[in-house]
Amino acid sequence: MATTPGDEATVEFMLKRWKDPKTGLDNAWREDYKVYLSFPDKTNPNKVSVVDPENRVLFAAREREKAYKPEQDDPEVVQPFAAYSPAGNVKGELVYANQGKMSDFELLNRTLDLRGTIAITRYGGEGRSKKAINAAKFGVVGVLVYTDPYDINDGLVSESETYPHSWYLPPSGVERGSYNIDFGDLLTPYLAAKDDVYRRPKEDITGIPPIPAQPIGFDDAERLICELDGDDAPTEWQGSLNCTYKLGGPGFKPTSPLNNSNVHMDIYNTERLENSANVMGIIRGSVEPDRYVIYGNHRDSWVHGAIDPSSGTAVMLEITRVLGKMVKEGRWRPRRSIIFGSWGAEEFGLIGSAEYTEEYFSKLSERTVAYINVDISVFANATLRASASPAAQSVLFTASKQVNAPGTTTSVYENWIKYFNRTSPNGIIPNVGFLTGAGSDYAAFMHYLGITSMDISYYYDRSKTRARIYPAYHTAYDTFDYASTFIDPGFTSHQAVARTAGNVLVRLADSLLLPFNCSDYAESLERYLSQAVTSYEEKLANKRISMESLKKAVQLFRDTATKLDRLIGDSDLAKETPLKTRRINDQLMLLDRAFLDPLAFPEQYGFRHVIWASRSSSVPTFPGLADAVEKAESTDLKEDWDQAHKHLSIVTQAIAGAAHTLDDVI
Amino acid sequence: MATTPGDEATVEFMLKRWKDPKTGLDNAWREDYKVYLSFPDKTNPNKVSVVDPENRVLFAAREREKAYKPEQDDPEVVQPFAAYSPAGNVKGELVYANQGKMSDFELLNRTLDLRGTIAITRYGGEGRSKKAINAAKFGVVGVLVYTDPYDINDGLVSESETYPHSWYLPPSGVERGSYNIDFGDLLTPYLAAKDDVYRRPKEDITGIPPIPAQPIGFDDAERLICELDGDDAPTEWQGSLNCTYKLGGPGFKPTSPLNNSNVHMDIYNTERLENSANVMGIIRGSVEPDRYVIYGNHRDSWVHGAIDPSSGTAVMLEITRVLGKMVKEGRWRPRRSIIFGSWGAEEFGLIGSAEYTEEYFSKLSERTVAYINVDISVFANATLRASASPAAQSVLFTASKQVNAPGTTTSVYENWIKYFNRTSPNGIIPNVGFLTGAGSDYAAFMHYLGITSMDISYYYDRSKTRARIYPAYHTAYDTFDYASTFIDPGFTSHQAVARTAGNVLVRLADSLLLPFNCSDYAESLERYLSQAVTSYEEKLANKRISMESLKKAVQLFRDTATKLDRLIGDSDLAKETPLKTRRINDQLMLLDRAFLDPLAFPEQYGFRHVIWASRSSSVPTFPGLADAVEKAESTDLKEDWDQAHKHLSIVTQAIAGAAHTLDDVI
Ligand SMILES: [Ca+2]
Ligand SMILES: [Ca+2]
Ligand SMILES: [Zn+2]
Ligand SMILES: [Zn+2]
Ligand SMILES: [Zn+2]
Ligand SMILES: [Zn+2]
Repeated sequence: MATTPGDEATVEFMLKRWKDPKTGLDNAWREDYKVYLSFPDKTNPNKVSVVDPENRVLFAAREREKAYKPEQDDPEVVQPFAAYSPAGNVKGELVYANQGKMSDFELLNRTLDLRGTIAITRYGGEGRSKKAINAAKFGVVGVLVYTDPYDINDGLVSESETYPHSWYLPPSGVERGSYNIDFGDLLTPYLAAKDDVYRRPKEDITGIPPIPAQPIGFDDAERLICELDGDDAPTEWQGSLNCTYKLGGPGFKPTSPLNNSNVHMDIYNTERLENSANVMGIIRGSVEPDRYVIYGNHRDSWVHGAIDPSSGTAVMLEITRVLGKMVKEGRWRPRRSIIFGSWGAEEFGLIGSAEYTEEYFSKLSERTVAYINVDISVFANATLRASASPAAQSVLFTASKQVNAPGTTTSVYENWIKYFNRTSPNGIIPNVGFLTGAGSDYAAFMHYLGITSMDISYYYDRSKTRARIYPAYHTAYDTFDYASTFIDPGFTSHQAVARTAGNVLVRLADSLLLPFNCSDYAESLERYLSQAVTSYEEKLANKRISMESLKKAVQLFRDTATKLDRLIGDSDLAKETPLKTRRINDQLMLLDRAFLDPLAFPEQYGFRHVIWASRSSSVPTFPGLADAVEKAESTDLKEDWDQAHKHLSIVTQAIAGAAHTLDDVI
Repeated sequence: MATTPGDEATVEFMLKRWKDPKTGLDNAWREDYKVYLSFPDKTNPNKVSVVDPENRVLFAAREREKAYKPEQDDPEVVQPFAAYSPAGNVKGELVYANQGKMSDFELLNRTLDLRGTIAITRYGGEGRSKKAINAAKFGVVGVLVYTDPYDINDGLVSESETYPHSWYLPPSGVERGSYNIDFGDLLTPYLAAKDDVYRRPKEDITGIPPIPAQPIGFDDAERLICELDGDDAPTEWQGSLNCTYKLGGPGFKPTSPLNNSNVHMDIYNTERLENSANVMGIIRGSVEPDRYVIYGNHRDSWVHGAIDPSSGTAVMLEITRVLGKMVKEGRWRPRRSIIFGSWGAEEFGLIGSAEYTEEYFSKLSERTVAYINVDISVFANATLRASASPAAQSVLFTASKQVNAPGTTTSVYENWIKYFNRTSPNGIIPNVGFLTGAGSDYAAFMHYLGITSMDISYYYDRSKTRARIYPAYHTAYDTFDYASTFIDPGFTSHQAVARTAGNVLVRLADSLLLPFNCSDYAESLERYLSQAVTSYEEKLANKRISMESLKKAVQLFRDTATKLDRLIGDSDLAKETPLKTRRINDQLMLLDRAFLDPLAFPEQYGFRHVIWASRSSSVPTFPGLADAVEKAESTDLKEDWDQAHKHLSIVTQAIAGAAHTLDDVI
């Protein structure tokens, strides 16, 4: 866990590996930030119980997960907790609130007075912190969160069917997590968290739970949910616990031993400023040292973290070992510089990577060609999965065609296209996702810096499981034993990811011409445009707002992309002057940067990329426009339609600006 | 005047010149924006009068300036007006409010009830629009503005001593001007004012007068001020009109024929969207076409504008003629591309240049090496004057050493150092001003884009006049006759400016290594730091805020600047690979960009450069810090000291970030 002695040991380990004289990098060092973290109190554990009117404890939830192997008994296993949940002592009648979405509470609120209640919710459907933020709006005083076996275990609940007998989550397993919305150190938005930097008052932090929250296992959840009184919960709210889920009276049913009793939450989390380190390593570029390819993953875990993050760290270490050896032996040096980052405190909200981008904002913006993120490298061993800026789609295809899928003679690409695919103007291709969220350390690079980024892993066969994520995620069961027995026996998928990501990395660092494809970007913009026209053109026209300029901007982008592609195709760059190649490479490097607008989403920390920013609307199109139109439709206020028009203009100008970046330089 | 037939004729003229097959540029074109402008009503002129209680007019101010030459009789001479002053019909007793500063109104308000009054103020000391904004806070209902002969005419008031007998302002002369605070089109901040872009509601515009304002000549002002009742105005409020200035009763003295009468303002200004054009021209670069040197000036005037802006436009046309001829004859082509801009609607608030930077934000940010602004090229013929980013100081020195001062055999540099100088670590040097304001079209380049900019002109001998500006500024007397008779007979100073600015331009466009000096930048930061430490260290320490990190950041900047200078000195770049030179040039080009923080001054349109942003504090140091400390001292509130700490952190991070830009690239 971040900033613990264990974390410090991994810092030393990484430094030792990256400074190894035979297989290390050119240089390695640590960079420290003083960041705001939240921990449970070891001597005063968080407690969830049911107490009768005389305050006698009728039921107490576990304080730790059950040990099936010595790893779970390690005294350093942190008690399950909701990071950034406030401390507090609250008591109330229980209700079941499904996933804790606004619509869930609204439904409950139709028949129940939620004021003073405790809500139990299941993971999924809504951000961790948002469950508590939503709840508080209805007067709920505390929130419990558990993982329903329906969502994580394909319905399996018994100990005999779960780890260590399978990859499924044991009944006492608890997903820890950071309960915040914004990423980066919460006290220092846009400023690197150095020792004496300005820190805003804690009271100014938004996006964390206003009321106590605590995660529990599904065994304890079952004891609570199956005793509830009240109406049956809707069908979609039912899970795999052994009863019909009810909404709560509020509180427990008359026939229950818990009747007339309250759920009691005693939360003792405390926040502290702690020192968190990034470990950085570099291989100097030979020809263009001032162009960086950055490859990173976080180093901190919640408990042992064999998969999250160490499956990714293993891949990174293998790549650095292979490249480092060639460099040390004088056999190879990349054209561009490669920077490796082992980020700290990701689990608390992508803190290490965000602080790094804040501190080195200018330098990284000026010089970074691409960012590759491999966090959980293997969720499961079925297929490659990738999310990326469209500019990087083609290099992902090229690389994955050169690597064999584990245990086969077909390529990772051919395997991939079987699991994720879509029809493009060039036929069926693997479907590369968009990086619209902030799920891992690519967020600050993609959204804040506008650097062409990608996130790579091996993933599930979705026809075989509907697990939200691999079941041991963020629990004490995410161990080497678990990984090697159930996730990737023989580690062949790890190897496939290392080879694919390494191939991408070397292509980005070594190609004379950057392997970015601006016509693929044009296609993505056209998909978004077509969706926007279908969904919004008529509605906007009714308000006398025209989409013509947006259409023209996308067309201009397409035309300039075609022109640049033709220029590249017609040139023999190896024979051209170095400055001509550099000029084209700069156009490609700066393409994603051209979509940044720091004023487009002033309320959302770090989100400046007007195409890939996260959106609340479910319409897969330009996020600012989608969210603004959705709001305007719901209120029909002039000022909200004005905002829709404004976001239309913002995205239009950004796309036209990006087209100018691709166009003839003069 | 912007968007008039006369303006359109100058657009055609520029295009013709820049497309001339023998002396023109590689290409020239126009770019149009639909911008929000304010005009008086030709058929319904603004009126300022004094009316008695029966509404009989006792005195009426002139509606136009007196004609001494046919130019003033031209029907196209626009009536003097305050652009963006609202239309309105107001009446009230008169008070004299000096320069219309807050402190001026506060002083008046001690003894007078200002509600319902009309205030007469003189130009200077406070922004045009701020005079009315300040006034409205005290209940004043209308503001008159005049130019006091003390401030513009070295005290001379009589027709026999003013133009056409001298360069001084005739009694009926009126300074027109834009009464707004923000620059750029007021309806489209951060969005280029294209046809169907989002335009905010007029009601959302800030920074324009909330009450009617109108400028008048000092002959009319004398009629009003010298009839005032009330106490004598303070000594510093006295001007050169032929009486002792009084504050107003409010209103006129009992012995005056105006006794018991009100000043009446009938303002008929209207706002319209009009089409304004920039004229653009280019010379393509031969080696680095994707690096731009931009040279610009506005094209619009208030009336004839012989000096403002045509003295600058003449210089620009001469430079393009000379360079264009060499290009057309195949004798020369610069290494980098040169872009010339003839901006529209500058007088209304730097609109053409601001819209251009909004539309081409990404491309210009990525590629522009420098911006040179020559607006009024000759204020007077005594000496060069320059304001610039410190990076450009050395190229201004080099260029000015190669040009002779008009009519002498000494250099412009040697002449300059006699009029403006300061002691630097390298001895006495000409004093180059800082570009902290938004006085001309450099504003969007310096403050919004962070492009190394400079503003060049020939200027007064301050021992010979204290005129705020050349007296015919923004009046109908700014004519060719005025310029050639009084400002620069023989146009030799115009020539000196053309040669100096042209020399700078060619050096920027042609040098293998960009002629920017980062150590000069370090010196400027050290001057600001030393001022900040002297003024604030103790006060901040009392609030437990340390300046150590700022000191370290400036030291780091100095160290990396020294290192880069040494690297440059030790290299024979002509023999190095093109990419090594490009790398250093990129570091120098991006130096000013590294100081941008779009969130540092969210209330100030376009200001993102944390070192050179405009500041209200009079302490010449880091603007965000200076203003924040000043506010915190006045309120002593915790949140205001927090803001001071925040601004300290912002400037520290920006300087450290700029140092990273100069440091070894890996
Ligand atoms: Ca931070
Ligand atoms: Ca605009
Ligand atoms: Zn992770
Ligand atoms: Zn995680
Ligand atoms: Zn001007
Ligand atoms: Zn002017």
